[in-house]
Amino acid sequence: MIFSSDNTAAAPPEIVEAMIRAASGSALPYGADDHSASVRSRLADLFEHDVDVLFVSTGTAANALSLATLTPPWGSVLCHRESHINNDECGAPEFYTAGAKLVPLGGADAKIDPAELRTAVRHKTGDVHSVEPSVVSITQATESGAVYTLDEVRELGAIAKDAGLRVHMDGARFAGAVASLNCTPAELTWRAGVDVLSFGATKNGTMTADAIVVFDRSLTPELSFRGKRAGQLTAKMRFQAAQLDAYLADGLWLRNAAHANAMAARLQEGLKAIPGVELLGAADANILFARLPQVVLDGLLADGFAFYHDRWGQGVVRLVTSFATTEGEVDALLTAAARYGG
Amino acid sequence: MIFSSDNTAAAPPEIVEAMIRAASGSALPYGADDHSASVRSRLADLFEHDVDVLFVSTGTAANALSLATLTPPWGSVLCHRESHINNDECGAPEFYTAGAKLVPLGGADAKIDPAELRTAVRHKTGDVHSVEPSVVSITQATESGAVYTLDEVRELGAIAKDAGLRVHMDGARFAGAVASLNCTPAELTWRAGVDVLSFGATKNGTMTADAIVVFDRSLTPELSFRGKRAGQLTAKMRFQAAQLDAYLADGLWLRNAAHANAMAARLQEGLKAIPGVELLGAADANILFARLPQVVLDGLLADGFAFYHDRWGQGVVRLVTSFATTEGEVDALLTAAARYGG
Amino acid sequence: MIFSSDNTAAAPPEIVEAMIRAASGSALPYGADDHSASVRSRLADLFEHDVDVLFVSTGTAANALSLATLTPPWGSVLCHRESHINNDECGAPEFYTAGAKLVPLGGADAKIDPAELRTAVRHKTGDVHSVEPSVVSITQATESGAVYTLDEVRELGAIAKDAGLRVHMDGARFAGAVASLNCTPAELTWRAGVDVLSFGATKNGTMTADAIVVFDRSLTPELSFRGKRAGQLTAKMRFQAAQLDAYLADGLWLRNAAHANAMAARLQEGLKAIPGVELLGAADANILFARLPQVVLDGLLADGFAFYHDRWGQGVVRLVTSFATTEGEVDALLTAAARYGG
Amino acid sequence: MIFSSDNTAAAPPEIVEAMIRAASGSALPYGADDHSASVRSRLADLFEHDVDVLFVSTGTAANALSLATLTPPWGSVLCHRESHINNDECGAPEFYTAGAKLVPLGGADAKIDPAELRTAVRHKTGDVHSVEPSVVSITQATESGAVYTLDEVRELGAIAKDAGLRVHMDGARFAGAVASLNCTPAELTWRAGVDVLSFGATKNGTMTADAIVVFDRSLTPELSFRGKRAGQLTAKMRFQAAQLDAYLADGLWLRNAAHANAMAARLQEGLKAIPGVELLGAADANILFARLPQVVLDGLLADGFAFYHDRWGQGVVRLVTSFATTEGEVDALLTAAARYGG
Repeated sequence: MIFSSDNTAAAPPEIVEAMIRAASGSALPYGADDHSASVRSRLADLFEHDVDVLFVSTGTAANALSLATLTPPWGSVLCHRESHINNDECGAPEFYTAGAKLVPLGGADAKIDPAELRTAVRHKTGDVHSVEPSVVSITQATESGAVYTLDEVRELGAIAKDAGLRVHMDGARFAGAVASLNCTPAELTWRAGVDVLSFGATKNGTMTADAIVVFDRSLTPELSFRGKRAGQLTAKMRFQAAQLDAYLADGLWLRNAAHANAMAARLQEGLKAIPGVELLGAADANILFARLPQVVLDGLLADGFAFYHDRWGQGVVRLVTSFATTEGEVDALLTAAARYGG
Repeated sequence: MIFSSDNTAAAPPEIVEAMIRAASGSALPYGADDHSASVRSRLADLFEHDVDVLFVSTGTAANALSLATLTPPWGSVLCHRESHINNDECGAPEFYTAGAKLVPLGGADAKIDPAELRTAVRHKTGDVHSVEPSVVSITQATESGAVYTLDEVRELGAIAKDAGLRVHMDGARFAGAVASLNCTPAELTWRAGVDVLSFGATKNGTMTADAIVVFDRSLTPELSFRGKRAGQLTAKMRFQAAQLDAYLADGLWLRNAAHANAMAARLQEGLKAIPGVELLGAADANILFARLPQVVLDGLLADGFAFYHDRWGQGVVRLVTSFATTEGEVDALLTAAARYGG
Repeated sequence: MIFSSDNTAAAPPEIVEAMIRAASGSALPYGADDHSASVRSRLADLFEHDVDVLFVSTGTAANALSLATLTPPWGSVLCHRESHINNDECGAPEFYTAGAKLVPLGGADAKIDPAELRTAVRHKTGDVHSVEPSVVSITQATESGAVYTLDEVRELGAIAKDAGLRVHMDGARFAGAVASLNCTPAELTWRAGVDVLSFGATKNGTMTADAIVVFDRSLTPELSFRGKRAGQLTAKMRFQAAQLDAYLADGLWLRNAAHANAMAARLQEGLKAIPGVELLGAADANILFARLPQVVLDGLLADGFAFYHDRWGQGVVRLVTSFATTEGEVDALLTAAARYGG
Repeated sequence: MIFSSDNTAAAPPEIVEAMIRAASGSALPYGADDHSASVRSRLADLFEHDVDVLFVSTGTAANALSLATLTPPWGSVLCHRESHINNDECGAPEFYTAGAKLVPLGGADAKIDPAELRTAVRHKTGDVHSVEPSVVSITQATESGAVYTLDEVRELGAIAKDAGLRVHMDGARFAGAVASLNCTPAELTWRAGVDVLSFGATKNGTMTADAIVVFDRSLTPELSFRGKRAGQLTAKMRFQAAQLDAYLADGLWLRNAAHANAMAARLQEGLKAIPGVELLGAADANILFARLPQVVLDGLLADGFAFYHDRWGQGVVRLVTSFATTEGEVDALLTAAARYGG
């Protein structure tokens, strides 16, 4: 039973069926197919905004491509020190932007501290000796499993906009954030200042498709050229689009995320009851961090539960749930933990 | 009925079924799944060589990533003037290589002329004022539908190797070339000097997966870092691998290509019999060029046949078949052409 | 006696004296010194236009920096096949532009053929599968020693502007062109559509300083950031500026160029009189190409005259004069050539 | 009287005279001149090592070019948080390296903390999700005016080498460090593990020339191609070489630095005696930081003394001396400070 990441889950039947349907008959390439049109239309409805969509094969590509369009090479990307773009993408943003600089900021729960951002957006602007603050990238939900409140996103967005910067949202777990906040996708994005969104889908149900949602559509031509150059423009785009189409239909995207969140909350509740377990930080979506007694940690591993541990301190574990996590799996872990910790 | 490209076809049932099977249960991410291991093993068998494999989402990414590993930024890529990397990838090779230069060479049927190559590989080598000849890229089959013979590939490979250059093969239609030559994949690649192959699969049956096959495995670490940075390393790699796994199983890849070639041959035979039709260049695989009488051209378009025309000269059409093209479709086109041309 | 290039000459006394004067006392760095202000003012007067100036250390940097500001990475630079940027800068434009593509065009005397340009500026515009035509780069004087007439420059400029492209002029031998045409610098540049000029000075008298002249000053902020990033922004800028200041004062720049041209014309006249010598192409400025009888060629080399030969065909030589070439040197070569060819 | 930077000084007579001498007669371009050969020979003697030399126009170019040769694009450059490459070069290292990542480390006096380095060199090595630790860059003297001891450099060098990383030294104030330590240049560089040195000369006497000294000469071909592509390869290289030649002859480089250091020491001594002045951090070379009483700070500015202040905290000033600073200037500042602070 795997709690190591939400990227180990398979795909829900709705997505599989969409792929089956898409796999018959001819279709025009490069986005001229019906599925691609449908996805754009669904996203426009969902976000209450005329948007453009680019399909990409990974969240890394979504982030790096988006950022390349939002900063010049001599610009800086203001992000949290713990963000995925800063630590886990092997410099993909630097590659796509032709060498822009990621400026790491602090803040609790991997959320950017507004005071630090307020200073950073004005840092040496217009000074050719220094990179130019150009874009703020907000990870929602954060790497540590917290979810920015609407007000928090609005504050960061306003700081960026007041200083003339662009706003990118890394939404690898965007659905989980929406489910957690119970807000509209519009409120959490363009209404709060977001120009471009990495609309993460892979962790939440699709097989081989992620997407960039463009709110400021003046950016689309540049994004399109950059996407082609990056090898992200697929000929048989219908197969990516079909996945997203099913993902967006009938609220599957939000249902999946709500389920993953619920499983994490169930885990959290259960762990609280176990002596010696210390919950760490906010666990607003589908990721939770906890410090386990060594005997519990060892026992769970011995029982075959898979998760990351001891990367963030002695005895600290990260548990991640997904749309595919079952109550049975959660309860099995809790039962085992209780047994070892009893 | 579409003859405009082989990228309009869907996917064969074997691939669809593989996706369905892959879509259940957990799997380790980033290539640690069983399908990924199977694909590597199948390719090693197929190529009679211990190979590494990188999955990518497009042929453009396969080419650009491969080339970036085979040339320094100050190097040059020797390729045919009509090659896809030179004309149809929006500078993706230049992006991935951080600014290497594509040096276009001539030659009939979009095949690199060996005499031109012999000069080009020695052009200003070691001179810091000029880019350094670093890699030869051979498109097999070519953009014009011709297939290099084994001897032709060997000759280009030998010229490159004698001069210390690397060899890349753009195999967007590699399967068609193998089917046409009736040779082994090994003969056509590493035995002829090829270091890295873009193993095109999308045009021949997969949905969202292409692959790079690495014969010189010392290149793999660099390729892997570059692939991650390029946003090509997928978490749910099993879904790409499953497609390739089915593609390689039971000879599907070669069967599909042989069928596409046979459909093009059938077209060719049929067109020969039509008065005023002039076949242009070699049509060794699944692409053929012909000059049609205007009345025939107009008639076919009016009947709803889709294909590119008048890009390469007045009345010149390009007809492309695929694994999904049926004899009925071919015969329908031939019947219509005969009627208009009669 | 060296006729191999105009880059072997030293520096005229006016430049040396300016350096001596600049080498005393403190001065503000990064262009806030008096010399830098003076150069900008002199260039504004000279070009009858409010211009910005960036000092650079080489013509390569001038060209590559200028082009990086005039094309996006997915753009193309339309230039002559024989141009310096295409052949002699080791891909510097590709490096600075983050991988834009140089599209080589033909034309006699290394001048871009207007008909080819007219086609190239419209080639696949707006098509993400292809690089986007973005800037035309005109080398004035050309690599083969010809000088575009004013009308020729205007025609290329108009073709570019009508299609929405930018215009760059590689003026490594700009002074020679102005001297040859007897026109104003304004006529040859912004009045003909030029946005940015590489104002070559090193070959014509300065020691370690070249400059970019910016007519479209909206480009200056980007150029400045790019220049800093490229390591071209010098702290002790007064020492570059002092050279340009003296170069521009009292018409030294034009006098030097006129002298170099006159020496080339004297060479040309003299060579015409020698039996078997064939003059090749236009020699409008300070470079001339000629085919010499083998006995003359061998004799000149044996006498210690230095020049490039046999690169452009059997017996073909390139002779370059400079501001420092003397009538005595020219006559010595002519006397020797006459003796061997007699 | 300027204490704002050592880049406001002019050039010593020895350098000026060398330029005058270099400015007569023809010379071969691109480093084939006598001065260039002489500089290489002098540096080999000075460093007791067979070295290669590349002339560059700025320290920024020296650093960025060096680093580009020492790290792949997916590598990281470990450097101090306060280093010039991290803060003051507008991302030039990121540009030249095609997007490598600078990883900022802490440590007192802007010296890299060995414990932090020891962790950083092992951080996620071989993990494609993270940039690969590739090179350590040591600034000697540091931005804050401290000088690493020989043992400190050796320790950092050993940590790097043990982990398989390269070592770069940013020697913008290398001469000052050597003068301060009274060691040999060899001890401070290759004997301590340094592969490539940015041999800063501009701040210490040259006009328009800096240099890269290459101890691991296997790097030279790559550096040369990169230098050309970067527009750093000058045709009239003799004019850069002549400056360095004079700079190295008769110990001028070290004499200049020792003088600048002595002037800073004199300042330091004098300031100590003034009530309320607090000296901050080490001032081992030609830069000192101090907190001044507001009345003293205001008074000095009113008197026309120029220096940076209040960037590093209320009342904090940075005073920089150079080879051109006179005892009279130092004493004038001290007298004024004493008067205001009395």
